[in-house]
Amino acid sequence: MEVSHIHYQSIGVVHSPFTQQAGTPVQPSHDNASQGMIEIAPQYLEALQDLAGFSHIWVLCHLHQARQPKLAVTPYLDDKPHGLFATRAPSRPNPIGMSLVRLQKIEANRLYVQELDLLDGTPVLDIKPFVSQFDNREHSQCGWFETAANNVTQADDRFE
Amino acid sequence: MEVSHIHYQSIGVVHSPFTQQAGTPVQPSHDNASQGMIEIAPQYLEALQDLAGFSHIWVLCHLHQARQPKLAVTPYLDDKPHGLFATRAPSRPNPIGMSLVRLQKIEANRLYVQELDLLDGTPVLDIKPFVSQFDNREHSQCGWFETAANNVTQADDRFE
Repeated sequence: MEVSHIHYQSIGVVHSPFTQQAGTPVQPSHDNASQGMIEIAPQYLEALQDLAGFSHIWVLCHLHQARQPKLAVTPYLDDKPHGLFATRAPSRPNPIGMSLVRLQKIEANRLYVQELDLLDGTPVLDIKPFVSQFDNREHSQCGWFETAANNVTQADDRFE
Repeated sequence: MEVSHIHYQSIGVVHSPFTQQAGTPVQPSHDNASQGMIEIAPQYLEALQDLAGFSHIWVLCHLHQARQPKLAVTPYLDDKPHGLFATRAPSRPNPIGMSLVRLQKIEANRLYVQELDLLDGTPVLDIKPFVSQFDNREHSQCGWFETAANNVTQADDRFE
């Protein structure tokens, strides 16, 4: 299998109250109060047209603070290790974050969002609208999450 | 705003019946019959542990056939242009695909999937489990999709 080398450039940056992984919400849905702003580079202003009609957006980003990947990790929500690709841990071969946040309002190139779980300064790679007909699954099996041992809502420093 | 330069390497490749964008399903949920296989590089075998317990997985991939980005696009599902970031069109500044597929079975480093909408040969960047408590949103507003003009299920060649 041929390995592809892929180069991206950030299209924006996350402004967030969280400056370290410890204490940051584990996933967006766990913390409705956390607010932040996503600043999109001005040259992409036109690409934000019509985005304000969506209540939720996917923020794809480069998890710049993630540690070197490990193939098995003990995630926040459990007390035993799982294969990395069966977790949402940030320390991945390509540390791409996929964060579903609530869009409050847009002012020019600034997206004000809630339910944020990203660190301040995180480079943004892409913004996609959340589309319920594409992204919701009514019936799904969620593996070890269904019997996970822990119910934590905030990260610690294990992946820093 | 500082621009970050980001380098990734593929962790696998998509094997799919679709060799060109025209005729490929527009989104995974639109075509339950399309099957394919995701071949993960053997060095990541251990990272697939426990993934088989999930019915759906997110495939993050590099849309290698996408055209140069345009800031406004007329998507398949509508007949007027929208800002790129308010669409799921493939021709993006960083052409990262986010595809939600049904996981049938895993054999060693091969993930057999259904509801696939990716082209053959697409480099895979990451695999994440679909977790309903993180990824489902019961109440959402989906902008122009809610009144979209078209109900197409297959792509044409506009983004090739």
